[in-house]
Amino acid sequence: MKKIRSLSGMLDLFNDSDASNSAEHIFRVEKKLKNIFNTYNYNEIRTPALEETDLFKRSVGDVSDIVNKEIYTFLDRNGKSISLRPEGTAGVIRSIIEKKLDSSSNKFWYIGPMWRYERPQKGRFRQFTQAGIEILGHEEGNSEYEMLSLICNIIDKLSINNSIIKINHLGDPDTKKAYCDSLVTYLSSYKNELNETELERLDKNPLKILDSKSENTQKILKDAPSLKDFLPKENIDLLNSLKDTFSDFCKIEIDYSLVRGLDYYSGFVFEALSNELGAQDAFLGGGRYDVLSQKLGGKNLPAIGMAIGVERLASISSIPKTQDKIVSFITITSKLEPKAFKIAHHLRSLNKKINLDVNLANGSLKSKLRRANKINASHALIIGDDEITNECILIKYLDDELKEQELVKFDEAYEIYKLL
Amino acid sequence: MKKIRSLSGMLDLFNDSDASNSAEHIFRVEKKLKNIFNTYNYNEIRTPALEETDLFKRSVGDVSDIVNKEIYTFLDRNGKSISLRPEGTAGVIRSIIEKKLDSSSNKFWYIGPMWRYERPQKGRFRQFTQAGIEILGHEEGNSEYEMLSLICNIIDKLSINNSIIKINHLGDPDTKKAYCDSLVTYLSSYKNELNETELERLDKNPLKILDSKSENTQKILKDAPSLKDFLPKENIDLLNSLKDTFSDFCKIEIDYSLVRGLDYYSGFVFEALSNELGAQDAFLGGGRYDVLSQKLGGKNLPAIGMAIGVERLASISSIPKTQDKIVSFITITSKLEPKAFKIAHHLRSLNKKINLDVNLANGSLKSKLRRANKINASHALIIGDDEITNECILIKYLDDELKEQELVKFDEAYEIYKLL
Repeated sequence: MKKIRSLSGMLDLFNDSDASNSAEHIFRVEKKLKNIFNTYNYNEIRTPALEETDLFKRSVGDVSDIVNKEIYTFLDRNGKSISLRPEGTAGVIRSIIEKKLDSSSNKFWYIGPMWRYERPQKGRFRQFTQAGIEILGHEEGNSEYEMLSLICNIIDKLSINNSIIKINHLGDPDTKKAYCDSLVTYLSSYKNELNETELERLDKNPLKILDSKSENTQKILKDAPSLKDFLPKENIDLLNSLKDTFSDFCKIEIDYSLVRGLDYYSGFVFEALSNELGAQDAFLGGGRYDVLSQKLGGKNLPAIGMAIGVERLASISSIPKTQDKIVSFITITSKLEPKAFKIAHHLRSLNKKINLDVNLANGSLKSKLRRANKINASHALIIGDDEITNECILIKYLDDELKEQELVKFDEAYEIYKLL
Repeated sequence: MKKIRSLSGMLDLFNDSDASNSAEHIFRVEKKLKNIFNTYNYNEIRTPALEETDLFKRSVGDVSDIVNKEIYTFLDRNGKSISLRPEGTAGVIRSIIEKKLDSSSNKFWYIGPMWRYERPQKGRFRQFTQAGIEILGHEEGNSEYEMLSLICNIIDKLSINNSIIKINHLGDPDTKKAYCDSLVTYLSSYKNELNETELERLDKNPLKILDSKSENTQKILKDAPSLKDFLPKENIDLLNSLKDTFSDFCKIEIDYSLVRGLDYYSGFVFEALSNELGAQDAFLGGGRYDVLSQKLGGKNLPAIGMAIGVERLASISSIPKTQDKIVSFITITSKLEPKAFKIAHHLRSLNKKINLDVNLANGSLKSKLRRANKINASHALIIGDDEITNECILIKYLDDELKEQELVKFDEAYEIYKLL
């Protein structure tokens, strides 16, 4: 019979007792991120995976690659065009407007799956996990400092090596426009050297050309006008102050050519990179997006956010493995012994710190002890017919070879288990 | 500008500082479930939301309502028919076969979003969260006991009132077939009293008629042949033993008319219900599905699983609210004060149990203290221009009105913060 395989670019994540894969590590990274978000007193927000397609056209922008080529869009059973979210911010702002919270201030985090129909490649998946932060209701200033504090904390707690935070400021809409115009004028004299994508961007989204991977284009850009010459002094001062404040904790660099892929950014933008990631080297990024709420029909809502690629972050995070305390519960009764299950059930209520692994197989004691060692159990509790009759449990100390096994009465075993 | 709304039947979950909604409660329920799964030493598994449509046709069954009417199916950019998962088990077994783990034993848990295009109604959503357990590689016996232990633990730890666990046994394939034949023969003489759906089921899935909501059909079924008369003694003995073993912990009832909606069940099946849920009253259910692996092209893999409707479980769970320890960090400097952010950043590294809420607004001290009280902060740390100059922090004890505020040097404040 034909086997059904997973879809291309979509990962299965799990820990089985044999394979050593990275799932457990990814789960641990997620847990660390949630802990960090909590220590900043942010609240979790969870929005649906599916939204009206129009939401992403109006937010991410319908000239972006994401909406044009990568979004999973389809008609529902009523003929409405719906899409799987390619990123997290649009849904958050949509929900804030819908709940009429677009005039209050809030600090949110989220984590969850997102989808983009990309060419599968190392570290890029069609379903990926994105974690994010949205600080809503605060004008430029404090939020920018808090955002950098968060990034430094993530880099520190996740033990990311060789990282650098790049920051930039896109100015206000007038500044951004003046700079774009000047860039378009400059690049127009090199039209015959630009590729098709770049020519299209020259019309629709010229800043994106600064991101070009083409060596020749980057050579042309060397003499292009610099954003720095268009930025008001206060924007440059903010960048310098941010850099000075957090340079004790992280490597930070001002990069006036840093632009972000999504249409809705303005003002302060940033990315964090590590040279351990290779070509596509940012593992988080974000910026200020004061205009998005109004674009979606909401009130004026100053906002700044960041998004973290969890699988990419995990691939460069060197946090150590943590080991749960595991006890193996082994029955070797000649027949199925419901009484043993009652004992296991009772034990679990006595000590919540222990993972009690009941061996469900019908094998020999030897094979069950082998499994107990394999799962790194510190102790084995063994119950056979004699033990049941005499109300005893045999305790083996797997983590201490010098310690003799003990046969103890149920009540005594319960007391020992409480203190394990 | 037209506002974009969330899609019908899809929830936004979040805690904002004003609204009292159930999001925090749902998140807490999820956390409890994960803790329970861990104390049984199960491993997390995470499979993609999207799968080939064929996977669900071959597992859930293409005569089921789920696949016929409720599944979100569409063509991807390459013209392949893909679907959003309507349940969790099919993907788990597909991934086990793909990783060639279909001849070993494993115990997994998962939690995540699933989608069904149902008519939105109270407690039913088009995107819902399902948690689940799959015990793989064990024949009937021990796993059934462990499954009941898990269910009793969930009912206990989530404080579910007025619950009952219904259990049944569908026998082996021959028993199931003999009973189905006899049921079809009996119901055939009432054909003119059955509705269209029931007539269709009579052909394709007669056991599902036992679930009928029609009063008249239930009246007809009163005299129908009972599964009990077809079951071998050992199956009935198992049901009685399971009931006896766990009746100290939960109310358990053998219900020979209990069948499950999905095609792949055989042997032991169960549901847990609470009369606090109303008409659609099961909050978890499952059973043995030994045939599924082979149906999907894998090896013979005995298996038993359960699925939990997290939103439904949360709606009847009365676990108390837990309160994180929150400290409010307030700056009242006349200008933006990067130095204060460095202090906040340092404080967080000193005590990880505290959620340090930096007030990002530009308001008065009074308004900031109001917010500190609103978020239930136990302390407020206040820094103004004078404090920065004198290297001091003002500590206010918000949870103890009798205690005077203190002005202390930075180093002393750090020591106090460590011990909060």
